[in-house]
Amino acid sequence: MTPSGIITLLTDFGARDVYVGALRGVILGIAPDARLVDLTHEVPPQDVFAGAMLLRNAVEVFPQGTVHLAVVDPGVGSARDPVAAFCERGILVGPDNGLLQPAAERLGLREVRRLDRDELFRRPVSRTFHGRDVFAPVAAHLACGLAGEAIGSPRAALQPLPIPDVRRGADGVHGEVVHVDHYGNLITNIAAREILNFPDDRLSVRIAAVSIPRLSPSYAAVSDGSLLAVIGSWDTLEIAVRNGSAAKRLAAGRGTTVTVASV
Amino acid sequence: MTPSGIITLLTDFGARDVYVGALRGVILGIAPDARLVDLTHEVPPQDVFAGAMLLRNAVEVFPQGTVHLAVVDPGVGSARDPVAAFCERGILVGPDNGLLQPAAERLGLREVRRLDRDELFRRPVSRTFHGRDVFAPVAAHLACGLAGEAIGSPRAALQPLPIPDVRRGADGVHGEVVHVDHYGNLITNIAAREILNFPDDRLSVRIAAVSIPRLSPSYAAVSDGSLLAVIGSWDTLEIAVRNGSAAKRLAAGRGTTVTVASV
Amino acid sequence: MTPSGIITLLTDFGARDVYVGALRGVILGIAPDARLVDLTHEVPPQDVFAGAMLLRNAVEVFPQGTVHLAVVDPGVGSARDPVAAFCERGILVGPDNGLLQPAAERLGLREVRRLDRDELFRRPVSRTFHGRDVFAPVAAHLACGLAGEAIGSPRAALQPLPIPDVRRGADGVHGEVVHVDHYGNLITNIAAREILNFPDDRLSVRIAAVSIPRLSPSYAAVSDGSLLAVIGSWDTLEIAVRNGSAAKRLAAGRGTTVTVASV
Repeated sequence: MTPSGIITLLTDFGARDVYVGALRGVILGIAPDARLVDLTHEVPPQDVFAGAMLLRNAVEVFPQGTVHLAVVDPGVGSARDPVAAFCERGILVGPDNGLLQPAAERLGLREVRRLDRDELFRRPVSRTFHGRDVFAPVAAHLACGLAGEAIGSPRAALQPLPIPDVRRGADGVHGEVVHVDHYGNLITNIAAREILNFPDDRLSVRIAAVSIPRLSPSYAAVSDGSLLAVIGSWDTLEIAVRNGSAAKRLAAGRGTTVTVASV
Repeated sequence: MTPSGIITLLTDFGARDVYVGALRGVILGIAPDARLVDLTHEVPPQDVFAGAMLLRNAVEVFPQGTVHLAVVDPGVGSARDPVAAFCERGILVGPDNGLLQPAAERLGLREVRRLDRDELFRRPVSRTFHGRDVFAPVAAHLACGLAGEAIGSPRAALQPLPIPDVRRGADGVHGEVVHVDHYGNLITNIAAREILNFPDDRLSVRIAAVSIPRLSPSYAAVSDGSLLAVIGSWDTLEIAVRNGSAAKRLAAGRGTTVTVASV
Repeated sequence: MTPSGIITLLTDFGARDVYVGALRGVILGIAPDARLVDLTHEVPPQDVFAGAMLLRNAVEVFPQGTVHLAVVDPGVGSARDPVAAFCERGILVGPDNGLLQPAAERLGLREVRRLDRDELFRRPVSRTFHGRDVFAPVAAHLACGLAGEAIGSPRAALQPLPIPDVRRGADGVHGEVVHVDHYGNLITNIAAREILNFPDDRLSVRIAAVSIPRLSPSYAAVSDGSLLAVIGSWDTLEIAVRNGSAAKRLAAGRGTTVTVASV
């Protein structure tokens, strides 16, 4: 796969330190022409699940041959492997703790390699910041076209991320909120295709003891301050308040159950 | 106009999601050599006025031929038009809800076009995220030099933004706070030229029941913790506290009235 | 020194305004091919010490010939000089208020120049925003290879930053917390080399009335929620809580004293 020259960055490093700046400096020292693109650095600290959901939903829009560097790494310095996942449409680099797996599946996973070629690392390797010393240099080399064989040995598979199931029962489709976005929209794990057979206007969405009687075509289809259900930009069911926060209105968050039934 | 190759981004998407990352990915897929420059992504959610003020004040410093992509879009999926505004010194792309109009005026508006060439969009077009599916691809094509005719049909004008007036009376010049910045500085709509005829040291600024007896040449011209009035970087009257927050000190914010009088 | 073409940015401008965007626009107007790299814009407002610590720790990983533009400038418009510090491994540009000095020392300071060639500035020069009007244009010219002689007159030295001392006594090494990071990790001014002679497992770290009985090899070496001491990514002693915040746990912050003793 020809590199696109783009390296995306997703971390839980936040904005107030120079940790992200350090990644950028290391990468540009190795790959001066790389295009660095931030996905987000506000993954909640050590929240691998949140990082994995965001990464999976971001990778698809990038050109073939993009390298995605992701670091949410509570186990840095411990037994978790540093890996690269070579996929049909891109390469993922980061700790093997579940963070990369949903994105790898979406990009078409072909091969996993353990990052064990120390000569590629920044020396000395800190025990607390593999983002800077291990992952960033390897991502930079991959963006320059270094082959998989040169970055590490083959591994069987990626550590899977435990993702909550969507269940279908006689009483409807049961899922849950997997992400609360900046606006307070509640994004669920119920894919649009799961509820295709429910007519939009004969469908009821139950969440946090309230019932939303239909699917709206957009946020703007209801009046200001009203609660609505919509197929959002992740192509999943989303609960929102027009010009407001559904998370606040419903006191709901990640893990809140959601049921879709026909009426 | 020759494109500068720069695309600026201004949104209310915040930092904790991958919405901005999605814009970047879509743009780079179409315009791999575009320079992406963030203006801000912390416009308060759905606050078109705040976005418009920030956009207007940011566009001027960019080179001729820059494309400014701005998305604060509470009406996404409804009747508001997606537009591009071709100006003497740049091109603005976004929803036609008032967001673009003050910036377009500042850059010298020449022509407005409705984005109605679906073949340029990312497919399928989500009903909730035109930033990614409509505005980003069009901005990318414009940065590559695509002509106005190819992106949509001419439109009469941009939706105007209601901007509070500055009034001159016998008792002075009356305006209001239009933006509170990161430091808590209160930025008003009173342009420097409006108060040129008042001598700096014989001028009184009244706000929130206090009176500031003169215009300071800089923040550092008063002692630590003192309140001051200054011509700020927007070239308008600004109320500040040296090394502190005027917004907190005065419990003031957007809409707080300000009067300048000679004494 | 050949420019790397990279300009890093470190400020206290925050994310909600377009101040950083203005720097970027001015730079790209002068140096269209410059690579702009954000270190952080979340230095606490007017906190020169915090900015200086972050800058010092970020500059090292960047390629030779990088220009580092840093603006934490409570004295803008007053007597403090605008300067450039030419170092063996890079160039620093900003206000001469202590902000640049620790980084300059780390990069090998060779020469200081006062920015007094007005023809390089953006006109008119605002009295409140030298970042945009003075520092950004000069940084852009330096990234294009303009020589030191062309940007200003030689100056004797940089304003030093008062940095708390590390003291060695009969009862151990005494230092203090100099930065609290995004995770709540307490980063001290005690360099790894200061405590090299203490065996890791016969060393006691005292902070805020608690005692940590050893140095851990990594965050993951203790159980979830446990307090630990580690040599962090700044190559200094750091106090952390695994998957938690040491700052909250200990109600500690910048200036909290830390003592390392052998047991």
